Amino acid sequence: MKTIVHNPFDREPVAEVPLIDWPQIDEWLSEAQLLHRDRHGWLAVHERIAILRRAADIMRERAQDLALQIVREGGKPLVDARVEAGRAISSVDLCVQALSDGGGHEIPMDLTEAGAGRTAYTFREPIGPVVAISAFNHPLNLIVHQVAPAVAAGCPVLIKPALETPLSCQSFVSILHEAGLPEAWCRFAPCGNDIAERMVTDPRTAFFSFIGSAKIGWMLRSKLAPGTRIALEHGGAAPVIVDNGVERAAVIASLLKGGFYHSGQVCVSVQRVFVPAAELKDFANDLGRAAEKLVVGDPADAQTQCGPLIRTEEVDRVERWVDEAIAAGGTLVCGGSRLSDTLFSPTVIVDPPESSKVSQEEIFGPVICVYGYDDIDLAIKQANALPYAFQAAVFTDRLSIANHCIQSLAGSAVMVNDHTAFRVDWMPFAGLRRSGLGVGGIPYTMADMSIEKMAVWNWPTAAS
Amino acid sequence: MKTIVHNPFDREPVAEVPLIDWPQIDEWLSEAQLLHRDRHGWLAVHERIAILRRAADIMRERAQDLALQIVREGGKPLVDARVEAGRAISSVDLCVQALSDGGGHEIPMDLTEAGAGRTAYTFREPIGPVVAISAFNHPLNLIVHQVAPAVAAGCPVLIKPALETPLSCQSFVSILHEAGLPEAWCRFAPCGNDIAERMVTDPRTAFFSFIGSAKIGWMLRSKLAPGTRIALEHGGAAPVIVDNGVERAAVIASLLKGGFYHSGQVCVSVQRVFVPAAELKDFANDLGRAAEKLVVGDPADAQTQCGPLIRTEEVDRVERWVDEAIAAGGTLVCGGSRLSDTLFSPTVIVDPPESSKVSQEEIFGPVICVYGYDDIDLAIKQANALPYAFQAAVFTDRLSIANHCIQSLAGSAVMVNDHTAFRVDWMPFAGLRRSGLGVGGIPYTMADMSIEKMAVWNWPTAAS
Amino acid sequence: MKTIVHNPFDREPVAEVPLIDWPQIDEWLSEAQLLHRDRHGWLAVHERIAILRRAADIMRERAQDLALQIVREGGKPLVDARVEAGRAISSVDLCVQALSDGGGHEIPMDLTEAGAGRTAYTFREPIGPVVAISAFNHPLNLIVHQVAPAVAAGCPVLIKPALETPLSCQSFVSILHEAGLPEAWCRFAPCGNDIAERMVTDPRTAFFSFIGSAKIGWMLRSKLAPGTRIALEHGGAAPVIVDNGVERAAVIASLLKGGFYHSGQVCVSVQRVFVPAAELKDFANDLGRAAEKLVVGDPADAQTQCGPLIRTEEVDRVERWVDEAIAAGGTLVCGGSRLSDTLFSPTVIVDPPESSKVSQEEIFGPVICVYGYDDIDLAIKQANALPYAFQAAVFTDRLSIANHCIQSLAGSAVMVNDHTAFRVDWMPFAGLRRSGLGVGGIPYTMADMSIEKMAVWNWPTAAS
Amino acid sequence: MKTIVHNPFDREPVAEVPLIDWPQIDEWLSEAQLLHRDRHGWLAVHERIAILRRAADIMRERAQDLALQIVREGGKPLVDARVEAGRAISSVDLCVQALSDGGGHEIPMDLTEAGAGRTAYTFREPIGPVVAISAFNHPLNLIVHQVAPAVAAGCPVLIKPALETPLSCQSFVSILHEAGLPEAWCRFAPCGNDIAERMVTDPRTAFFSFIGSAKIGWMLRSKLAPGTRIALEHGGAAPVIVDNGVERAAVIASLLKGGFYHSGQVCVSVQRVFVPAAELKDFANDLGRAAEKLVVGDPADAQTQCGPLIRTEEVDRVERWVDEAIAAGGTLVCGGSRLSDTLFSPTVIVDPPESSKVSQEEIFGPVICVYGYDDIDLAIKQANALPYAFQAAVFTDRLSIANHCIQSLAGSAVMVNDHTAFRVDWMPFAGLRRSGLGVGGIPYTMADMSIEKMAVWNWPTAAS
Repeated sequence: MKTIVHNPFDREPVAEVPLIDWPQIDEWLSEAQLLHRDRHGWLAVHERIAILRRAADIMRERAQDLALQIVREGGKPLVDARVEAGRAISSVDLCVQALSDGGGHEIPMDLTEAGAGRTAYTFREPIGPVVAISAFNHPLNLIVHQVAPAVAAGCPVLIKPALETPLSCQSFVSILHEAGLPEAWCRFAPCGNDIAERMVTDPRTAFFSFIGSAKIGWMLRSKLAPGTRIALEHGGAAPVIVDNGVERAAVIASLLKGGFYHSGQVCVSVQRVFVPAAELKDFANDLGRAAEKLVVGDPADAQTQCGPLIRTEEVDRVERWVDEAIAAGGTLVCGGSRLSDTLFSPTVIVDPPESSKVSQEEIFGPVICVYGYDDIDLAIKQANALPYAFQAAVFTDRLSIANHCIQSLAGSAVMVNDHTAFRVDWMPFAGLRRSGLGVGGIPYTMADMSIEKMAVWNWPTAAS
Repeated sequence: MKTIVHNPFDREPVAEVPLIDWPQIDEWLSEAQLLHRDRHGWLAVHERIAILRRAADIMRERAQDLALQIVREGGKPLVDARVEAGRAISSVDLCVQALSDGGGHEIPMDLTEAGAGRTAYTFREPIGPVVAISAFNHPLNLIVHQVAPAVAAGCPVLIKPALETPLSCQSFVSILHEAGLPEAWCRFAPCGNDIAERMVTDPRTAFFSFIGSAKIGWMLRSKLAPGTRIALEHGGAAPVIVDNGVERAAVIASLLKGGFYHSGQVCVSVQRVFVPAAELKDFANDLGRAAEKLVVGDPADAQTQCGPLIRTEEVDRVERWVDEAIAAGGTLVCGGSRLSDTLFSPTVIVDPPESSKVSQEEIFGPVICVYGYDDIDLAIKQANALPYAFQAAVFTDRLSIANHCIQSLAGSAVMVNDHTAFRVDWMPFAGLRRSGLGVGGIPYTMADMSIEKMAVWNWPTAAS
Repeated sequence: MKTIVHNPFDREPVAEVPLIDWPQIDEWLSEAQLLHRDRHGWLAVHERIAILRRAADIMRERAQDLALQIVREGGKPLVDARVEAGRAISSVDLCVQALSDGGGHEIPMDLTEAGAGRTAYTFREPIGPVVAISAFNHPLNLIVHQVAPAVAAGCPVLIKPALETPLSCQSFVSILHEAGLPEAWCRFAPCGNDIAERMVTDPRTAFFSFIGSAKIGWMLRSKLAPGTRIALEHGGAAPVIVDNGVERAAVIASLLKGGFYHSGQVCVSVQRVFVPAAELKDFANDLGRAAEKLVVGDPADAQTQCGPLIRTEEVDRVERWVDEAIAAGGTLVCGGSRLSDTLFSPTVIVDPPESSKVSQEEIFGPVICVYGYDDIDLAIKQANALPYAFQAAVFTDRLSIANHCIQSLAGSAVMVNDHTAFRVDWMPFAGLRRSGLGVGGIPYTMADMSIEKMAVWNWPTAAS
Repeated sequence: MKTIVHNPFDREPVAEVPLIDWPQIDEWLSEAQLLHRDRHGWLAVHERIAILRRAADIMRERAQDLALQIVREGGKPLVDARVEAGRAISSVDLCVQALSDGGGHEIPMDLTEAGAGRTAYTFREPIGPVVAISAFNHPLNLIVHQVAPAVAAGCPVLIKPALETPLSCQSFVSILHEAGLPEAWCRFAPCGNDIAERMVTDPRTAFFSFIGSAKIGWMLRSKLAPGTRIALEHGGAAPVIVDNGVERAAVIASLLKGGFYHSGQVCVSVQRVFVPAAELKDFANDLGRAAEKLVVGDPADAQTQCGPLIRTEEVDRVERWVDEAIAAGGTLVCGGSRLSDTLFSPTVIVDPPESSKVSQEEIFGPVICVYGYDDIDLAIKQANALPYAFQAAVFTDRLSIANHCIQSLAGSAVMVNDHTAFRVDWMPFAGLRRSGLGVGGIPYTMADMSIEKMAVWNWPTAAS
């Protein structure tokens, strides 16, 4: 069994990757469990640091190739692929950093007589075998976010990439091995969904990390073996509140990036923008005009700003959703149609009904919806009405509005004067409600993949 | 529908408590969701502090009654019930304390150009409606550990106590209301298992806190609605390593408390003690002699050290497990038999087979198993061999052995020269593997019941 | 030798307090040193907690008397004295809280081979004998801020109150003793300045805490014995920037409190207000009208908002400074004159020259200066131009201005839409430049009075 | 004016370095003050990170040369100089790391009504111009510890190296400039003592960092300008307790390193070793035999373990102290004499009187004193009896003794089974009593060179 990797732009085959079968996975899981149980064979922290530093150095040398590979398998425009490669490297650096932060604390014991005379402190230990399943949209950096923390934390890890984009994953795993990580500590495990599910739900799996669709993520949680821990990172339909009177040009520039970056295939992509009703028309027109100027095309071209969707079926789906929204009363401002089997034009829709798919579900395509509001509290209520909550944003120069939105918008992060897709790799990054489980971001993932063990010493009395 | 509460010692009825039906629970869940969504109605932190302080004051006044009620419904010996009442009060105090610790952090944004010029910090928000299901063995303090952090964190909470011991829960909920907590923020919800499951798995439940059997806990996880968070606290079969040459009397005194406190009905009760083979016989005899001296009987009697098991079926079960262990080759040192329908004598078994239930599963009764070892690493291996891992212990005065056990024993806490049931209410308390999920202890539970929300400010430039 | 305490309002004698002579201080210092060196005699943390809790309870019972005593010896208006008493009690509570926070950390040792295999963690120990000298303006709460953290941290402490206001200090020390603190751990040490200096500069003094004038504080630093640590809390001439377009009434209400509270005898009192030139006249007039309405008089009267200055000499000095400012070109808007030997009327001056004393030095009286600005950056420059820097403030609803001021105003704290005297007792409170040394606030003072000791364990290898 | 640098081994001149005169220092101080006051000209954190990373890379390339230079000017044996160079590089890395840790915290404001509705958080700002004076014994790494944190924290810095060893300092400053740090941010400032004192005590100096003798350090503190902050790192006479029954060979190997590394010219060098009286003779003989085997000679020789003292006067002084100790009753076990004008033989003295200089003052030469004890508490008392306290150690495999020593030995760090000179560059490193002021170690120094500024937001109410 194997999977054929296609260039999402022209659907040309790029590479073949053999799929791993269950007996192999089964063996790897046992091996991982043994590695974890044999404390004498653990890699010392300074060994892990050395490996990760070498890996980052290798990546720095190959950054250009890694970027091109992201373009080739993932269809992300070159300029953005370069940024991704740079972030992936810095994410490896962040793992080294997070190791230095320790994580242990003294727990005072003498607050009551019951604990008096004892000393207690905590320290971190690897949680055990990690199984990770990743998504296609950032084929290198997502992998790094799931695999490098496991290596840093001292956990053996099996990683299943998205089958559309396994090459960046394969490269990163190879680089780790090249940097000195014994192969058994990190296994490249592309496989079919049934086998993936078996791997995930196996009782030997101590921690399961998933980036992908909410539906599959929560289904997998319900099938986990007792004792298996889990982190989920899904998407949402990220809302943006625009206050009245803000300088429109800057806001639009930010939203263009936040909504059309990687053609909207980002889990915190700007999807729903709420604008004062009085400014709605002008705002939407300006946004539409700007969107029309975006360069859509071959991601390998350095000028391209929006590349293909990952699969033709996705183009079909986005087209259907947009059509539905227009038919139900939304106004198309720009875009709205497929440019090819893999390209969809950047699209702005004004006031699609709240019940339409584009208002309810994650689009994961180049579509921004703009809604007018008279009462900001109603806009916030609508922004919060979905079962998803991840990152949200407000554009304003008023303290009152900024704080009101920070407090009131549902989400784990509220940006003031930045779009919803803003992210640095060391910050917490957490889907709430159905948008995810646990907290991502390098140091947080490392904490998740560790246990905080406590030693409590009841000291014997010294007699000289 | 109602449940009749019996005194576990004499099986006399003590009280009746009406059970809550689904329509009522359903209404409470909706109410809880609305409370959480209406940010303007949230209780300010200083209001919550005032309520919790008043509640603690009321509890201090009624401490004696609360202790007697623990005796009456739970069968815990009076002296230990008094300790529990005291700890419950101090657990409320700890909630106030944890509120002061804040929890937010600045996240530096200017480590790369991508984030430069921004300010970011995190702060805590309530996670939403909490549903809690509790256990019988600490009828007041467990309830406090599940309910008070929810109140402190600002979450509406529905609490289902163990149906054997609902009275302490009812008292605590009443005290909260008396202290000024509006009733809707905390609902006393004793109900049947089917209704409890419906409540737990309802999508309006944001967080589910469970203390009880591993089997039920993990089953409930598999049925949760997408988006619901969870904490589980189960038990284990806690191991103790005794080094050679330690002063036996002190170790035995500690193990007696750790193994026979509340007749072993404690999730981190001492269950498996590993002793150097050369000292095994003397150690077991001394332990047996000490166990035989324990006063077993009516928990209301101030002299009683071991009271009843919670139900006759539990006496039956413990009897079967002990019989099985002896039949399979274990040596009975003391106890081993029922004293009445509700009392089981403190029991010490030497070298029951590894495959016997007393070596494999949580006994939750007054039984300590003692195993001889020649090689401490094999003892540790056996200690770690179960799918459970919670607290472990070692008795030694040697640095080398202490550290080796701290590092090697599976568990979230390793006590040096204390028994496995050692706990103070502010320390982390976490079942690993199948023994639990998440971290208990007042400040940790409060963190679990909160989200850490981040505000990222991209500052507009000042022009005067 | 004794000091006579006068009511600052009517100069009537209130009480006599004997002064302590050097032989007694000398003995106390030796005693303190011995207490600190004899680790076996240290009070356990739970004992200190119990003492502090009892002390807070006693204070709660006597809150009214404590407030009246503050009025009597300090001349603080009753309504504010009540607030002070409440804060003093809560400051004792905060000490208990801070003890629970521990303070120790694991220091990871295995980041390099040099440290590999070791475990290290830190924990707190008392620093040793504390000598504290306090100020008159918050006769109870300042004492609590200097003494209670010492007791909580486990340090013996000698406290010299301001000789104008020794009674609140005496009461607090008595309450500590009544609450169970052995007398030797806290000594009430009113004495003359020469003896105070001898006490401060004695080599047995491990930590010196000073609240008072900058001149004396820095002079004492230069005379400390080698090894003695120090914290200084002086004052400044706190600046406020008012943005254009803010709602004037709210700002003025806040500045009235911040500038005239306790007749300006507060180290972070509002002193220099910068207002857009176009709004200067209206702003100053409104502020003046509001200041004129303040009730000035007997602090024991519940209606009084501004009471006396602590000494007639202070009235004289404030009068001279105001006269000088007016003579040099400042415009008097209201007040500007003495009402009696102890009362000075709330005063607003517009545009006193930058070189005048009221623009350069801490007034410590009921005087607010208002300056017009055209360019906010020049206003900030002027605000920052003094060798003092403590708390600053800005009133605005614009994000851009708020952040600009937060970043640019010199000080340890910048309030947005609060006056400069805003303080809660758990926040950091630190004079920068000549305004102080170290960080005040209960948990910070406790950290200062502790050392963070590290244990590094190089584990021997276990051989069973 | 210039200083001539000599090779301490053969006293041959190595280089000349011009000394800086006051007009130049004066100009640099003004420049530094202006740099700090002009916030717009500050280097962004990501710029500082880039500079420090480049500097570390350059140092990695020149590590061999840097090590040889340490040998040449400092006389440190080559093998140890290489370790120092490696640590210096990693200390620069640690600065980058510490920048990522941020340091800001949310301060909850709503614990009382007084603060309710506000948001507060802290963040770090550079403290201002740093003046540093360094010592000769680690000519590169000490400089890095004083200069790199200043650069990382964003402070302009003037560094005066020890005039015996200015070359490593000069190299490091040049490397910083080469890495992109504008020259004005870091000035190489070798100068005479009178000018150094003028620089230190100038009011423009915000922070003064000193590594050197206690006498000079505390004298300089007494002359600082009001407002100037300070950190001092002096030495002590580090004590070691050896428990009975420990394996002697390992202890001696550790003490040899801890006592004779860089011929004892280390501020935490092992100086006073307390051994059970019954083992004293054997212990001292074994230690003596091992010390005699140390290779003493030309530090440029890769085999050399002990090189020269920094100046002939130091050899004279050490000789006098040893002679005095022997004359007063101490027993010489080995060494005790000069081998040349610059070399002193590794020396072990048994039971020198407590009053002798070697028992009272820091030797800063290759001398270890061994004392017998019968009662460990008396040994601890003697260990603690000096006005110095820095790092201490105990060798034991008994928990009881380990904890007793950790608790009882005066010092900021107690090593268990490591010598007193153990240090990694990220751990806290603090002289207590007269041994220093403030806490060293990269992240701690960076905190010292920053202020933690707080923003308190009182939010206006949103009206849509």
